[in-house]
Amino acid sequence: MKKVNLAVVGATGMVGRTFLKVLEEREFPINDLYLFSSSKSAGKKVTFAGKEYTVEELTEDSFTGRNIDIALFSAGGSTSGKFAPIAAANGALVVDNSSFWRMDPEVPLVVPEVNPEAIKEHKKGIIANPNCSTIQAMLPLKALHDKYTIKRVVYSTYQAVSGSGVKGVEDLEEGSKGNPTGFYPHPIAFNCLPHIDSFLDNGYTKEEMKMVNETRKILCDDSIRITATTVRVPVKNGHSESINLEFEKDFDLDELVATLAAMENVVVVDNPAENLYPTAAEFSDRDEVFVGRIRRDFSVDSGVNLWVVADNIRKGAATNAVQIAEKAIEMELV
Amino acid sequence: MKKVNLAVVGATGMVGRTFLKVLEEREFPINDLYLFSSSKSAGKKVTFAGKEYTVEELTEDSFTGRNIDIALFSAGGSTSGKFAPIAAANGALVVDNSSFWRMDPEVPLVVPEVNPEAIKEHKKGIIANPNCSTIQAMLPLKALHDKYTIKRVVYSTYQAVSGSGVKGVEDLEEGSKGNPTGFYPHPIAFNCLPHIDSFLDNGYTKEEMKMVNETRKILCDDSIRITATTVRVPVKNGHSESINLEFEKDFDLDELVATLAAMENVVVVDNPAENLYPTAAEFSDRDEVFVGRIRRDFSVDSGVNLWVVADNIRKGAATNAVQIAEKAIEMELV
Repeated sequence: MKKVNLAVVGATGMVGRTFLKVLEEREFPINDLYLFSSSKSAGKKVTFAGKEYTVEELTEDSFTGRNIDIALFSAGGSTSGKFAPIAAANGALVVDNSSFWRMDPEVPLVVPEVNPEAIKEHKKGIIANPNCSTIQAMLPLKALHDKYTIKRVVYSTYQAVSGSGVKGVEDLEEGSKGNPTGFYPHPIAFNCLPHIDSFLDNGYTKEEMKMVNETRKILCDDSIRITATTVRVPVKNGHSESINLEFEKDFDLDELVATLAAMENVVVVDNPAENLYPTAAEFSDRDEVFVGRIRRDFSVDSGVNLWVVADNIRKGAATNAVQIAEKAIEMELV
Repeated sequence: MKKVNLAVVGATGMVGRTFLKVLEEREFPINDLYLFSSSKSAGKKVTFAGKEYTVEELTEDSFTGRNIDIALFSAGGSTSGKFAPIAAANGALVVDNSSFWRMDPEVPLVVPEVNPEAIKEHKKGIIANPNCSTIQAMLPLKALHDKYTIKRVVYSTYQAVSGSGVKGVEDLEEGSKGNPTGFYPHPIAFNCLPHIDSFLDNGYTKEEMKMVNETRKILCDDSIRITATTVRVPVKNGHSESINLEFEKDFDLDELVATLAAMENVVVVDNPAENLYPTAAEFSDRDEVFVGRIRRDFSVDSGVNLWVVADNIRKGAATNAVQIAEKAIEMELV
């Protein structure tokens, strides 16, 4: 694979550090590597593939004259809004992990196993990485939508504190010892908060509407009816989702399970007789999406319930972004 | 209210001890009190309303010649299966917390705010207390079913370890310190297990099918279509539920909220602008059912999403049983 000049923006955050870990693991073909952060973390030393790098402060000149081919952004929406176009104007293909560009019709929203061809349609030099809770659902849903045509989705999520970054993990860890940091608006230790991201006027959270809107965009089908309840749970890492699906077409359950198992990067873990099903604590730190508790929903003509688990920092963020970058190289877009 | 001779079977377990706490709080009209347990806990001293009682071993003669009016059972299904009929044959009205008698057509399954009249139809001298996760859903669902006719329910639950008794709480507490007891088949600390009670041949757990079948029996409507995913979460006490409802009739959202708020023992806690919604850790140790995150489900013609929280040991078990006993006295059934 062609070696590229790569920038990581937000290199010292939780996702940024996982970007570097995943890039190293996958032996991503890097020529020059540039690490950027806010002024607060600038100057930090980071070791990558045995070599030490100094994190630079991100400025409007960061991308000038450096021939950066790909820039992986994970530095929050406002940073992406401002700096992704600057990176793109300097010739970089941006893969952005924030929500800022996701619903822009000129920005592809990509899960590489699901809609890799969309990558080519980037009109602004920006490709958006979907929301963590959406990404993991897309792999099983794509496989089933292609075969049975999904009519309706009801999502209820069980999302880990790592999704809020290091401060979320800290509040859970300290709170479990009786010393909550107050990062979340209510205690997270030994509690469940039906509140992720901010509330909108329609009573939903932004996180819930991301799941609704991003699912339709990625599956490229606005006719799918979707609702969501997203919940923060006292889990350190790994999101779980209870997904109820209703199909147009009827299905055979064994065939449906085989369809899921055949999907790239989906692993079926489903043997109730042996108490086997995926759980966040046991199936995080992996790049696949794990599906269990697969059973017919007897309340509709053709429906199924699924339990879907993935590492929200890896497949839900860093791994997915790196996979997009790999596809872009394969497609000779950089 | 008429004073009665009361027996508590399973007096030393988690629910049994809460029976005693709730009876004391509510100044339940007790004449003589008898406390029973397995041989293991027999002989223990228990203080109730300032008086010390010795727990007796439950035997076939425990109810003989004692004129026990009401027996509250919380000692597991096999004990209820054997001893509830013996208590009833000796003239006691049994309120049973196990699942053993719940689906018996001659045994009423009662949530006092929802179907109190069913108490009168006990044909065996036994009234069943529903499953904890079902009870708390019944209060909001009854209010909405009466007004809008529920067509379909999709339950996803977030259930506390206290539902498994002291050993569940212990596994979470010790597991959170890095020393799991192995009570659950997978780690419960910082994890979510989509597995409550045992698995059935249809791929559902017994807990999930309890929610399906008990909801229909309590709402007295077999036409409601229901599916459930029940999940154990690392919460000490208090169950939360994400409930998606589809109605026959259309609704006005403000009117729906008012309908919920008007239901006996339902408290609406729903102010997103102030980050207000019920959570298990903050709203347990209370007897009401708390409802928040009330919002229209835009994926169906008439539907709503709710977040419902209650104390599974109080309203989900002990309080509900004591309320049934109070109603039976009011109705002069004892």
